[in-house]
Amino acid sequence: MKKWKNNIRQVVPYVPGEQPEDRNVIKLNTNENPYPPAPGVMAAREQIGDLRLYPDPAAGQLVKAIADYKGLSEDQVFVGVGSDDVLAMSFMTFFNSDKPIFFPDITYSFYDVWADLFRISYERKALDDDFCIRPGDYYPENGGVIFPNPNAPTGILMDLSDIRDILEHNQDVIVIVDEAYIDFGGESAQELLTDFDNLLIVQTFSKSRSMAGVRIGYAMGAPEIIRALNDVKYSFNSYTLNQPSIVLGTVSLREEGYFKETLKKITDTREWFKKELARLNFSCPDSRANFVFVTHDRLPARDIFEAARAKNIYVRYFNKPRIDNYLRISIGTMDEMKAFVAFLEEYVNH
Amino acid sequence: MKKWKNNIRQVVPYVPGEQPEDRNVIKLNTNENPYPPAPGVMAAREQIGDLRLYPDPAAGQLVKAIADYKGLSEDQVFVGVGSDDVLAMSFMTFFNSDKPIFFPDITYSFYDVWADLFRISYERKALDDDFCIRPGDYYPENGGVIFPNPNAPTGILMDLSDIRDILEHNQDVIVIVDEAYIDFGGESAQELLTDFDNLLIVQTFSKSRSMAGVRIGYAMGAPEIIRALNDVKYSFNSYTLNQPSIVLGTVSLREEGYFKETLKKITDTREWFKKELARLNFSCPDSRANFVFVTHDRLPARDIFEAARAKNIYVRYFNKPRIDNYLRISIGTMDEMKAFVAFLEEYVNH
Repeated sequence: MKKWKNNIRQVVPYVPGEQPEDRNVIKLNTNENPYPPAPGVMAAREQIGDLRLYPDPAAGQLVKAIADYKGLSEDQVFVGVGSDDVLAMSFMTFFNSDKPIFFPDITYSFYDVWADLFRISYERKALDDDFCIRPGDYYPENGGVIFPNPNAPTGILMDLSDIRDILEHNQDVIVIVDEAYIDFGGESAQELLTDFDNLLIVQTFSKSRSMAGVRIGYAMGAPEIIRALNDVKYSFNSYTLNQPSIVLGTVSLREEGYFKETLKKITDTREWFKKELARLNFSCPDSRANFVFVTHDRLPARDIFEAARAKNIYVRYFNKPRIDNYLRISIGTMDEMKAFVAFLEEYVNH
Repeated sequence: MKKWKNNIRQVVPYVPGEQPEDRNVIKLNTNENPYPPAPGVMAAREQIGDLRLYPDPAAGQLVKAIADYKGLSEDQVFVGVGSDDVLAMSFMTFFNSDKPIFFPDITYSFYDVWADLFRISYERKALDDDFCIRPGDYYPENGGVIFPNPNAPTGILMDLSDIRDILEHNQDVIVIVDEAYIDFGGESAQELLTDFDNLLIVQTFSKSRSMAGVRIGYAMGAPEIIRALNDVKYSFNSYTLNQPSIVLGTVSLREEGYFKETLKKITDTREWFKKELARLNFSCPDSRANFVFVTHDRLPARDIFEAARAKNIYVRYFNKPRIDNYLRISIGTMDEMKAFVAFLEEYVNH
């Protein structure tokens, strides 16, 4: 064997959700938004301008637009290439303790991957039997805490009082609340920023703003922790957000009417879909995200997953302990969900 | 002090070249291309399409376009968010030895930053008095080798025979040749890929393709090392290149005529500018990049830098040992360089 192979970093590669080339697929597997970005975003594509120049490394225009939108100051906002980039930078920046970080046993599948990558020790805290986070599990001494709210892939929302409780018991470490799905019906922990300078909130343009293809994520926190994130980012790659991202992201924030309207369509569709699922003897936690997490009282999830796939309907199946009889189904347009219900109706009754 | 501050990663933040908002500045400080991207790229902005969906995590369309353009197979090409991202991923993937990696003492200013960030030990090998790399310095046992060709900020090109020599003496580690500026007059090490499966060549769309604002870099190497890079990238952030990058980068590669034409304009301007510099008693190494590295026989570089800045002409000054009496001047349009020569003429003679 070649000696240089000994020095290659060993990782367990992440397998992303399938991105089929075929556009006839009903794609409910990666929590994308079924509606296009705001009309202004589409129109702004022609104005993405001076591509020959390096983008502003601070993405100042976008940071200011987010800060204004959220009622924060610019030094409270950090932007990155999707929330994955923001979260990875956060792990690298804040989780350098010799104590393990804590996160739920059923949660976003990248947390343990980043912890392994950056050699951060961790403990998974089991959700209760209803898939809820138990705040008390996060009281013992640790090197940091992270959880999504709503949690993924369950869609369950935690009350702000529970988040406050976790923060009160964790004032010596950074607590990250990953709010990728918060706009679909949750209350952001943003108001807790006033009381906790160790709180970092991460959000994204990929879901509620229909811009997964543009890759914009951001974090909100006290100026001191935002500065630390920027220091690490600049030491790694100064120019991460490209000019199209900066321009299109900024425009998106101006289109509040469209934003609210598409959110309402998705949450209305979700509530309709939940009722249809119940009718077909599926059960699911009360999702506040743009997906539902479902199990059937009789039919194995994996079989449904494969049968749907054969009909060009893609959903997500996780072959993991405790959740291997569940499907995560993204909320598409009403037409897409009706087509899926028609498929389920036939599948369940035959 | 808050205890969580103890766990923040300590880094020395990189200070990027100034990106002035004022568009009246003659901007010769960050090696950008003075000409716009190819006309097809500008036209394709409207076709960047399905922004609501995640981009193809493999950026397959762009990887194929690069592979076809270079006469390689797709499994020999890795793409990233600018060559900084590609290089950082390469440090993380390949430099995991307990022996130090080697790079020149005067070189791209990010190498030591990444080495520090990933806790990789390193030794800087001094360039000779003419700022040339001495291949023999790279013979001792090491954990990896990296150097730019042409070197930055000197612009000096190394012969392929010297690169082959370094590779022959370093078959147990990965050798990275950073060819960010190769298109401006150098011979790529690509032909050495046939003989060395431990060679990684990194190039970028930021300079010769006028697309710094889009952030596309790529690496070429044996399938096995490209696979290792992809494994690490996927474990970090699966969706790094956004949809605009994938579409615009692919289109750029189709416009060979425009590409050659702008390269010729820049190299013609560079050769003219070198003669003007000599006339004004500046000296510089024989640059094969889109910048020149100059010193004056009498006037301090820092003073020229500041005087130019006061006239809205930005160049780069590095306050570092051995090069603190040099300026790095990017090659702009002929008009921009004439304006700069007019400034120098007045500055030198008064």
